[in-house]
Amino acid sequence: MPHVNRAGVNIYYESFGSGLPLVFLHPWTTNRFIWAFQIMEFARDHRCIAVDHRGHGQSDKPDSGYALTEMADDVVAILDHAGVDKAILIGNSIGGMIAMQTSLSAPQRVLGNLILSSGTNIGANAPPEMAEAMQSDWRGMFSGLLDAAVSQRSKADRPEIGTFMEACFRVENNFNEKVFFASVADPGGVFAWNISEQLKDISQPTLVIAGEEDGATSIEQNQFIADNIPNAEIKIYPEVGHFCQLEQPLSFNSDLRGFIARVTG
Amino acid sequence: MPHVNRAGVNIYYESFGSGLPLVFLHPWTTNRFIWAFQIMEFARDHRCIAVDHRGHGQSDKPDSGYALTEMADDVVAILDHAGVDKAILIGNSIGGMIAMQTSLSAPQRVLGNLILSSGTNIGANAPPEMAEAMQSDWRGMFSGLLDAAVSQRSKADRPEIGTFMEACFRVENNFNEKVFFASVADPGGVFAWNISEQLKDISQPTLVIAGEEDGATSIEQNQFIADNIPNAEIKIYPEVGHFCQLEQPLSFNSDLRGFIARVTG
Repeated sequence: MPHVNRAGVNIYYESFGSGLPLVFLHPWTTNRFIWAFQIMEFARDHRCIAVDHRGHGQSDKPDSGYALTEMADDVVAILDHAGVDKAILIGNSIGGMIAMQTSLSAPQRVLGNLILSSGTNIGANAPPEMAEAMQSDWRGMFSGLLDAAVSQRSKADRPEIGTFMEACFRVENNFNEKVFFASVADPGGVFAWNISEQLKDISQPTLVIAGEEDGATSIEQNQFIADNIPNAEIKIYPEVGHFCQLEQPLSFNSDLRGFIARVTG
Repeated sequence: MPHVNRAGVNIYYESFGSGLPLVFLHPWTTNRFIWAFQIMEFARDHRCIAVDHRGHGQSDKPDSGYALTEMADDVVAILDHAGVDKAILIGNSIGGMIAMQTSLSAPQRVLGNLILSSGTNIGANAPPEMAEAMQSDWRGMFSGLLDAAVSQRSKADRPEIGTFMEACFRVENNFNEKVFFASVADPGGVFAWNISEQLKDISQPTLVIAGEEDGATSIEQNQFIADNIPNAEIKIYPEVGHFCQLEQPLSFNSDLRGFIARVTG
């Protein structure tokens, strides 16, 4: 069964393929469908585990408990449930934060991290008017943020990315207002979580991928991660925003293959 | 729980959104991820149910039982399990066959059919060398078929479609050799199923969508369906192959919206 119950919260995941395990961790407000062009492809020679984070998709949506440490513990519970000892984590945005937190909370379970367009302490880097916009019209604010998060080229060539993103946070049983504000308010949640001083303790090989046109997590924020994790490299994509796995799927897949080879080589 | 057990076979589906129900039925060898750009978008104002057919994805893979009538009965069992009285069915390739068969087997449950690149009696229309190639190297044969099923433009602009398709039938726990040959051998299976004489009995509004460069189910095969279902229209896409929902997702979605309006209007 693809649900694991951790402390009363059902977390959904699904698994395809066999081999060295890869765990795919999606961005805030979305779900595992964002990895459609990775899961099947990598399941040809890996065990691909795709998670719906708490508050998202087919997972439960509790009233509170959206600290990154909780979400990382969910990943560990999934690894236990799936009988996986160690895995490479691939996380986008909040998924990248969950990967980094898992690497700190349970380092023995993580072989490496591919951090796609993420950050730490992102609330402090957000413009002050965002907090106000969030309170008055969070959907409008978030819609604008997502629009700025996709590159001009992707908007022209793959307009379906924007409609997918916009839909995900408007479908009540995928994500909802309660989850949004509980995450924002959580002292260890997506905006407040800050591991700036602990990045140096992440020892796993790490590849950071960032998009030059990412209006959600800047190149500077991603560069900060790569500069502070000891064993990290960074690759910056031109004409890509926050969602390289959908904006340039085959190039992203090629980088992921290269990273797996680096980790296992 | 997203599994329904019908006569000992677990069929997986998932559901997002609420409103008039839409059921998405994927092509042979793939799974529900092919509808990534439809499910979330339509879940904004519909209940979207995405199925993994028996033999595919997270559903069981029995040794036999791959007649289209069985697969249509699975859809009815899902509707019962999900508490859905009537739905619009959206089926691609074998998914379209399942939709048509459901419309015959349980007409009171189907409001309308969007048949995307499908056919009936397709074994009789297949070249004779295909049967031989199937026996000697089914994966090679199928790989060639999929290559011919994607348009030149899609290959250039969205090469990830080809890698997705190729991966789906090579990932053992998504689809496998046993399912392939059991489907081929079934007297009511994907190649032998023939409702040419019954198309006239499908009374629901139907939209057939076909791609001009579809090397898997030809325009003629799709035209035959549209010509023989009394209440059917057809739209033919230039520069599209067998998978319009991925090759031109927003245009396909616009057509689906128009079709829903026609059915409910």
